[in-house]
Amino acid sequence: MRFSLRPQDDTFYQFFKDAASNIVKGTAILAELAEPDVDVQSVSERLAEVEHDTDEITHELYNKINSTFVTPLDREDMYALGSQLDDVMDYIEAAGNLVYLYGLSELPSPPREMLELINVLTAQAQITVEAMSKLKGMDSTLRDYWIECNRLENDGDRAYRMLLVRLFSGEYEALTVLKLKEVADELEKACDAFEHIAHTVETITVKES
Amino acid sequence: MRFSLRPQDDTFYQFFKDAASNIVKGTAILAELAEPDVDVQSVSERLAEVEHDTDEITHELYNKINSTFVTPLDREDMYALGSQLDDVMDYIEAAGNLVYLYGLSELPSPPREMLELINVLTAQAQITVEAMSKLKGMDSTLRDYWIECNRLENDGDRAYRMLLVRLFSGEYEALTVLKLKEVADELEKACDAFEHIAHTVETITVKES
Amino acid sequence: MRFSLRPQDDTFYQFFKDAASNIVKGTAILAELAEPDVDVQSVSERLAEVEHDTDEITHELYNKINSTFVTPLDREDMYALGSQLDDVMDYIEAAGNLVYLYGLSELPSPPREMLELINVLTAQAQITVEAMSKLKGMDSTLRDYWIECNRLENDGDRAYRMLLVRLFSGEYEALTVLKLKEVADELEKACDAFEHIAHTVETITVKES
Repeated sequence: MRFSLRPQDDTFYQFFKDAASNIVKGTAILAELAEPDVDVQSVSERLAEVEHDTDEITHELYNKINSTFVTPLDREDMYALGSQLDDVMDYIEAAGNLVYLYGLSELPSPPREMLELINVLTAQAQITVEAMSKLKGMDSTLRDYWIECNRLENDGDRAYRMLLVRLFSGEYEALTVLKLKEVADELEKACDAFEHIAHTVETITVKES
Repeated sequence: MRFSLRPQDDTFYQFFKDAASNIVKGTAILAELAEPDVDVQSVSERLAEVEHDTDEITHELYNKINSTFVTPLDREDMYALGSQLDDVMDYIEAAGNLVYLYGLSELPSPPREMLELINVLTAQAQITVEAMSKLKGMDSTLRDYWIECNRLENDGDRAYRMLLVRLFSGEYEALTVLKLKEVADELEKACDAFEHIAHTVETITVKES
Repeated sequence: MRFSLRPQDDTFYQFFKDAASNIVKGTAILAELAEPDVDVQSVSERLAEVEHDTDEITHELYNKINSTFVTPLDREDMYALGSQLDDVMDYIEAAGNLVYLYGLSELPSPPREMLELINVLTAQAQITVEAMSKLKGMDSTLRDYWIECNRLENDGDRAYRMLLVRLFSGEYEALTVLKLKEVADELEKACDAFEHIAHTVETITVKES
C-alpha cells in the first residue's frame, strides 16, 4: 500500500467497482443468447435495467468529482474511467436490444464467431471488475490486467473479422447480414471500449507509481 | 454576471454564436427534405455553402485562440467547442450531400423516422444557439440546456434505432437500404455531436462556477 | 534551430520517423492492389509484418516516455502522435487483410475510386514521413505540411463519397458491395487519421513557437 498525500475517499473506488460489476451482469445476460430457448425480449429488458442503473452510478460519480476539492486520483482520469465503463455498458445494452428489435431470435442460433465475441467480452468484464478492486492499492498485478485486456481485445478483433467473413459468405440473406452486422458492430465497440478502460488504468498507475 | 480576472473579449463568444447560428440554417435547409417537391441539388449546394462558411469561422477562432495571450475561457475548452460545432455542421452537410449523390429523391418520401431524427436536430440546433448567447454571462439556465440536449439525444437515438428497424424490414431493396443507412448514420452522428457540445458547455460552466 | 530548455533526446524523434517510414512501406504494399496479377495473400502478410513492427515501435516509445523525466516535447503530445501513427498503420493493415479474407481479388480490378483513395494515402504517407524529420528543428515548412495534409484529406473524402456512389449504383451484387465498403471504410479511417497526425503536429508547433 503506497503512501499518498491525497485523501483516499473510498466512495470513488466504490463507483468504479459498481459500474464494472454491472458490466459483469450485462455480459452474463448477453451470454444467454447462446441458449436454444432464450427469451430475447427479457434479455433486452434486463440489459436496459442494468444500463439504466449504470447511468445513475456514472451521474453520481460526476457529481461527486465536481463537488470534491481534492480527489484521490486526477479528475480527468476519473471522468475518463467513469465514462468508459458507461460506454461498455451502452454497447452491450445496444447489442441485446438490436437482437430483439430486429427479430434475430428467429435464426436457429447466432453465428459461432458472435458467441466467441461474447465470450471475449465476458472474460474482459471479469478481469475489469477485479482490476477495479485493486485500483485503490495500486496493486502491482494491475500490469497483468492491462496486458491481458489487450490480448483479449486482439482475440475479439480476430473473432469480429472472421464473423464478417461468415456474414458476407452468402450463408445469410442480405437484410439478415445487415442486422447481424449491426449487432456485431456494437459487440466490437464494447470490446474496444474495454481496452480504453485498460489504457486509463495504465495511465493512472504510471502517474501514481 | 460573475466577476472574472480574465478579459472578456466578445470576439470569442461571437464565433460560437455565428457557428451555432449556421447550424440553425443547416437544419432548416435539411428540413426541406420533408417537402414533396424538394430540389435536392439545391439543398446539397446551400448546405455546402453554410458548411464552408462555418469552416472559415472555425479557422478564425483557432487563429484568435493562438494569438491571444489570456483567453476568456480555457484554451482547450474553446478549441473543443469550436471543433464540435464544426463537426455538427459537417455531418449535416454530409447527410444532405448523400441524399443528392445517391439520387434518393426518387423515393416518394424519406422514412418517417428519418424526418423525426431531423426534427430532433432542429430542436438541438435551436437550444444550442440560445446556449451560445448565454455563455458569456454563464447564465444559470445553461444547466437546463444540457439536460434538454441530453434528453433530445436520447430521442434521436430511439428514432435512429427504429429507423434501422424499418430499413431492415424488407420495405426497401438492399441498395436503397444501404444508401438510406449512410444518410441515417450522418444524422445520428450530428445528434451525438450536439451532446458533445453540451458536455463541453457543462465542463466550462463547472470550471467557472 | 530554436533554443530549448528541454534535453533534445533524439530517440523520441527517431521513433516517430520509424513509425512514419513503416507507413510509407505500408502504402507501397497497398498500392500493389492496383496491379493485375497481385498476390493478395502476400500483400496481407507483409502488411501484418510492418504493422507488427510498428506496434513494437509504439510500445518502446510509450516505455521511453514513461521512463524519461524531462521529455523534449509534452508527454501527452508524444503519446498522441505515437498512437495516431499506430492507428494509420492499423487501418492500412486492416484494409489489406480484408481484401484477402473476403476473396476480393476475384474482382477484375478494384473500383477506380478505391485506387484514388490509396493514392491519397500514399501522398499523405510521403509528406508525413518528411514532417517527422522536420519535427526536431520545428522547421517553419511544417505549416505547409499540415495545410497539404488537410487538402489531401478533402481529396480522400471526395474519393470516398464517389466510391460509395459507385458501390451503391447496382454495378456489384449486394454482398460484394458490403465487402468493398468494409475495405473502403478502413481506407477512409486511415485518411482521417493522417489528419489527426497533422493536427497534433500543429499543436506541438504552436506550443513551441
